[in-house]
Amino acid sequence: MIIAEILATGDEIRSGTLIDSNSAHIAQQLELAGVEVSRHHCVGDDMALLVSVLREIAERADIAVVTGGLGPTSDDLTAEAAALAAEVPLHQSSEALELVEAFFRNFHKPITPSNLKQSYFPEGASCIVNPTGSAPGFMISLKKCLFFFLPGVPSEMRRMLSDTVLPAIIQKIGKQRMHHRVVTLNTFGLTESMTGETLKDFSSFFPNIQLGFRAKFPEIQVKFYLHGEDEHQVTSMAQQAEAWVTDKLGDHLFSSDGENMEVVVGRLLSRNKATVALAESCTGGQIAAWLTDVPGSSDYFLFSGVVYANQAKMDVLGVPEDVLVRYGAVHEETVKHMASGVRRITGATYGLATSGIAGPGGGTDDKPVGTICIGLATPDAVYAYRFQYRFKSRNMNKQIFAMKALDILRRELMGVLKDAPL
Amino acid sequence: MIIAEILATGDEIRSGTLIDSNSAHIAQQLELAGVEVSRHHCVGDDMALLVSVLREIAERADIAVVTGGLGPTSDDLTAEAAALAAEVPLHQSSEALELVEAFFRNFHKPITPSNLKQSYFPEGASCIVNPTGSAPGFMISLKKCLFFFLPGVPSEMRRMLSDTVLPAIIQKIGKQRMHHRVVTLNTFGLTESMTGETLKDFSSFFPNIQLGFRAKFPEIQVKFYLHGEDEHQVTSMAQQAEAWVTDKLGDHLFSSDGENMEVVVGRLLSRNKATVALAESCTGGQIAAWLTDVPGSSDYFLFSGVVYANQAKMDVLGVPEDVLVRYGAVHEETVKHMASGVRRITGATYGLATSGIAGPGGGTDDKPVGTICIGLATPDAVYAYRFQYRFKSRNMNKQIFAMKALDILRRELMGVLKDAPL
Repeated sequence: MIIAEILATGDEIRSGTLIDSNSAHIAQQLELAGVEVSRHHCVGDDMALLVSVLREIAERADIAVVTGGLGPTSDDLTAEAAALAAEVPLHQSSEALELVEAFFRNFHKPITPSNLKQSYFPEGASCIVNPTGSAPGFMISLKKCLFFFLPGVPSEMRRMLSDTVLPAIIQKIGKQRMHHRVVTLNTFGLTESMTGETLKDFSSFFPNIQLGFRAKFPEIQVKFYLHGEDEHQVTSMAQQAEAWVTDKLGDHLFSSDGENMEVVVGRLLSRNKATVALAESCTGGQIAAWLTDVPGSSDYFLFSGVVYANQAKMDVLGVPEDVLVRYGAVHEETVKHMASGVRRITGATYGLATSGIAGPGGGTDDKPVGTICIGLATPDAVYAYRFQYRFKSRNMNKQIFAMKALDILRRELMGVLKDAPL
Repeated sequence: MIIAEILATGDEIRSGTLIDSNSAHIAQQLELAGVEVSRHHCVGDDMALLVSVLREIAERADIAVVTGGLGPTSDDLTAEAAALAAEVPLHQSSEALELVEAFFRNFHKPITPSNLKQSYFPEGASCIVNPTGSAPGFMISLKKCLFFFLPGVPSEMRRMLSDTVLPAIIQKIGKQRMHHRVVTLNTFGLTESMTGETLKDFSSFFPNIQLGFRAKFPEIQVKFYLHGEDEHQVTSMAQQAEAWVTDKLGDHLFSSDGENMEVVVGRLLSRNKATVALAESCTGGQIAAWLTDVPGSSDYFLFSGVVYANQAKMDVLGVPEDVLVRYGAVHEETVKHMASGVRRITGATYGLATSGIAGPGGGTDDKPVGTICIGLATPDAVYAYRFQYRFKSRNMNKQIFAMKALDILRRELMGVLKDAPL
């Protein structure tokens, strides 16, 4: 039985200024690679404590992943602590020096003396390439335990974990490996408890599979985990369970491979050779920001008019003044005009419009905070919907409004949009 | 010096299915109460390991807070583990039994035998009332360490921490209480290592203050922590250090109370009774989405035209076709026209425009990925800037482009914008 432990370092995590999300990611990834993590630790930027925890771990574990403290500044102590724990000197690694120098050369930035510090590792350590940041990592054995030292920046850590650490671990553990599968299904439109009710018979059909739910607002992710010694059997069981869950969730399931809503909508637009233009009032550019996060989105995303002011709704989108006067900014009629207007001025296949009350102020008895009207103009028709959410947070409302609008466009593109409450 | 440690228990946190946010909250609250947490631990639902970690902590710490494992199911092992570590029997606490029974009476739910398990504590423990859940907590001394055992449900844990645990800790430590200050300064425009270089003499002026840096892309946060027994002295030292750092960082410092860029820019716009309208090409609505996250932003944010297509730049903003033909979409002249155009059509005080290449595609030798042109039209002048970033990630480029544009507006609003490279 392989024992693995994780150590997060740094005063920000120790003091609670920052929540440690790295350790959870590492534990999940190690489990997928067939290694169960038994303990997590966290200590601050304190040399004596760092050294003593590293020595403790070396007594017990076979594998350890340590994050943080590899930066250029004076509070970055990890390399020195590892050298003290291993009772070897720190020395400049020529490989690490090359990597640090190459990083600054590529970014056309001057290298500072404190950056050079990042090339000092304990003697005997091997370098772990960091493709996206200035701090290389390193690996070194202390007693029987193989330690991997990675930066604390989550994006850099994740990349180095998958590129270098996991392959090295799989090689080290060899045949002791278990086969794991994690299936993640992204849903939108049901609450977490409604999702749970929908899938309540799961465990009677699949007693050996662990089912979990995760609210990744405004989505709900359905996850299940399974493991076993026979790879083929694990794969087949995962497929059966996925098919069962997919059937139960129906239209609320929008992706089964971790893709987010904007990627799914973008692919549907591309596939249909269609374009979209937006008129965003309450969503304030959030839909445009999401859509344009996707590489290649300029092929189908034409324009968003973030029309906070009524004057802009009239001037830019051509919403008639009497519609705004008669119905107000938050109304089905208004969003129909916004959607048609932005479709007309841009020549897009689809015009999608939002107007609502994100809060915290601006609510009335008639249109409380959380009210959202969404309009969709297609080549054939113009649809409008009104929904009422109960969130108090401006940011949560903006996000669920934006996601709901994209979900309506997704349903239209899939041919399952109904001209009635969704 | 009081030593405090935190232990999170449970397979969900150990395996990474759940990110542990409890420990960060507890560390922050203890620090505010004057106790610095030195280590965090996490182990799963494993009796032998739980007992051994509790014993380890009892050897070192004066105070320990443990979360999780107090529920009614078979994987809830904490009370038994505490009894084993303390070498006392488990027994039914009449106080806990009353609390459990009262909970189910109040919620009109039938009590099950497994719920009764929640009234069994180690002999000698005292009960901690849980006003919002079924599982009471308990406190007990192991060696010189006072342990507090709380449920893992964050809302229940937080309530019990503030109602019972913190008062008990403050009573226990009495005059040993330390006073802490954390100062956070948000900067933009320098890399982490450049920030470190700028402040490299900090420790010679303030040898007792711990300085830290955190890359919260695209910002760099400068933080320092200090503590001492004399509250007045701690406050005065924090002010001196803040003044020193503020002076060194100059214009790169944009907030000293944790406020983010869009809040700072919004307040400056309000204070100047000014409004802003945006023309966003490569930033794709990101600036609008940030600005409109701030409650009350409708007072100063009028409009953003997310003009991906050149046709939209002409039709909506009135950028002359020959400018686009002669200079291309990414050029100082083009963003000047975009900024002036959006200022003109909306009547805003400021027009702010972005056009650049976020990648991953679309770069040329002349205008590689990471090129950003920013235009600012003010009542008196029109400025344009070009910057070159080296990020490969589309999302990172979008964020740093958007932040740079807001930073230019911030500098203009503060009267420190220079008509030259920043």
